[in-house]
Amino acid sequence: MKPFIDTQLNHKSIRVFKNELLSDETIALLEDVAIRTATSLGMQQASIIKITDPILKEKIADICQQDYVAKAPHLWIFIVDTYRNGQIAQSDKHAGEFYRFLQGYSDTHLMAQNVVNSIESLGYGAVFLGSIQNNFKALSKLLNLPKHTAPAIGLGFGIPNQMPQLKPRLPKSLRIFENSYQLPENTKQLLEEYDNEMMTYYDLRQVNKRSDSFSSQVKQQMNRDNEKHLQIIPDLEEKGFKF
Amino acid sequence: MKPFIDTQLNHKSIRVFKNELLSDETIALLEDVAIRTATSLGMQQASIIKITDPILKEKIADICQQDYVAKAPHLWIFIVDTYRNGQIAQSDKHAGEFYRFLQGYSDTHLMAQNVVNSIESLGYGAVFLGSIQNNFKALSKLLNLPKHTAPAIGLGFGIPNQMPQLKPRLPKSLRIFENSYQLPENTKQLLEEYDNEMMTYYDLRQVNKRSDSFSSQVKQQMNRDNEKHLQIIPDLEEKGFKF
Repeated sequence: MKPFIDTQLNHKSIRVFKNELLSDETIALLEDVAIRTATSLGMQQASIIKITDPILKEKIADICQQDYVAKAPHLWIFIVDTYRNGQIAQSDKHAGEFYRFLQGYSDTHLMAQNVVNSIESLGYGAVFLGSIQNNFKALSKLLNLPKHTAPAIGLGFGIPNQMPQLKPRLPKSLRIFENSYQLPENTKQLLEEYDNEMMTYYDLRQVNKRSDSFSSQVKQQMNRDNEKHLQIIPDLEEKGFKF
Repeated sequence: MKPFIDTQLNHKSIRVFKNELLSDETIALLEDVAIRTATSLGMQQASIIKITDPILKEKIADICQQDYVAKAPHLWIFIVDTYRNGQIAQSDKHAGEFYRFLQGYSDTHLMAQNVVNSIESLGYGAVFLGSIQNNFKALSKLLNLPKHTAPAIGLGFGIPNQMPQLKPRLPKSLRIFENSYQLPENTKQLLEEYDNEMMTYYDLRQVNKRSDSFSSQVKQQMNRDNEKHLQIIPDLEEKGFKF
């Protein structure tokens, strides 16, 4: 069974696809995998909205500020959903609690990764879209989302039409610890080595341009003021979630 | 490559394991898969703490209120970690923002599911532990967690020594929609059928006792007051996260 782990070790985000849909049988299989994914307390607090309407896809690409989203043959949005269980229980007194939001958020992400593994095991490619959270309110309206639901992660997928380089990762010793959180003494040196490795990487989104070092990317990200980020909590509150 | 999807379609939580460790080579492979998992904006804001100290394992089992946690041959805790990037950037001004917490929470869950897929592809078994969030503060202290980190999900794994029944799931039409959130008109009937199916399921945690209907489980969960749940936000605030 080793070949599947080889697939996992070679995971790359695919953003350019052939203009071709996967078969209905394949889509049905991916749906089966999605609903069979592990779920917190068996509560099944994740739902999927499959985007097949091309106009809707364009609008979502606008929200993501990523043109390639509109070009993905298949686009699925994974939704935190404590609404359905509120309906079933005929009581949504607790449906908006943060703990339940996290249960649903957890469910959506286990599901999305499980589906990606199916997709890649079949030789197809996918890209996760965290950017659907850029404008939660607009997306929520577009998808007709009821209270106690929230878009958590998106997935574009299809037949790859690009071959990206494998993106370097931080070394294990900076990310995996034993019994206690403890960065190693040689963290600075390991980081320098990783920074050098990262600068040999070409991100296909920026044609012919070498990647910045990881440290430099992190500095940019960590110093970035972003009003959209601060809008997430008020937007979730409008959907009935409590903080 | 179909066999791997068959594994996914047969996913069951394994809570009883043979008293045997996986080989160091296998663990190293699982670590490789973990760090190669997709990560939001490439920021790698998830870390793992491998629990090998048996006393620590007992204490974590107490927090989870689940005896079987102490008996899992391997126990990994996946941590939201914006602390490391705060250190790298020499600025943690934004490290506690909710948006970044969600990025890390997303990273931990993609990683945990990816590792579970590896484990199951090798014929081993695993159980997710959401219950590590039962006492966030105690666990955080036990694992020596710095600010801007939070335990998100746990994983017990090893060689299965039980054969649970496949747990029934809600039908697709209640969870997967097209272009718009819309529960089907026959929701009530589909739910009744699912409730009946669920009552034929035996949960190995409750020996020889049939499962409650899904509707009844949801009613119990959705009407449950739980002070621990309300403690999560103040506990996260103590670690520097902002709501």
